[in-house]
Amino acid sequence: MKHVHYTDVEAEIPNEEGAENVTIRWLISEKDGAKNFAMRLFELQKGGCSPWHQHDWEHEVFVLEGKGKLVSEEGEEELKPGDIVFVSPMEWHQFKQDGEDVLKFLCLIPYKDKK
Amino acid sequence: MKHVHYTDVEAEIPNEEGAENVTIRWLISEKDGAKNFAMRLFELQKGGCSPWHQHDWEHEVFVLEGKGKLVSEEGEEELKPGDIVFVSPMEWHQFKQDGEDVLKFLCLIPYKDKK
Repeated sequence: MKHVHYTDVEAEIPNEEGAENVTIRWLISEKDGAKNFAMRLFELQKGGCSPWHQHDWEHEVFVLEGKGKLVSEEGEEELKPGDIVFVSPMEWHQFKQDGEDVLKFLCLIPYKDKK
Repeated sequence: MKHVHYTDVEAEIPNEEGAENVTIRWLISEKDGAKNFAMRLFELQKGGCSPWHQHDWEHEVFVLEGKGKLVSEEGEEELKPGDIVFVSPMEWHQFKQDGEDVLKFLCLIPYKDKK
């Protein structure tokens, strides 16, 4: 059983074009024996954003702290703590920080079917 | 894309022997098209606990609010907001509320390999 605080897990710079002022913590991953899905925590500093992109796996997102915008092909929506987002495979999406505080959210992805 | 606040999702009484003063919200599930894993939010009121049990699928847990105890075969550990727990398949485990406030945590489970 792994039991730590999220701040005990290193914040890394994601290796992804279009991600700005973002760090990622791989809270639970294959390294821990997780075979089906991974839990990551993203922190977007002021002006931070994830890339505007699509891919053939889903996201399951829970917003922890801060404010932001969820961008989809339908436009922009406000993100606030306690919000959940399910991004289906192949849906275009982007997360943007807004306001003064760091935007923190969990984003889980599958290992299976993630090619 | 599904985007709602967690309080928009109904809190249900889990149909599980040994769960006391607990509700579960299925935030993201098969109903939403999630094929690989489900995101649930548990709320344990004062004196609440999940059953002391084991099963052949894993849990990926993130503590949101409140205090509690994580019980394993190694004993009890304190749970606080920001804690993450990875419970491997077949590990015995239990979550218990502690203190005055509601213990809220996310607990994600796989659909695949969940028999």
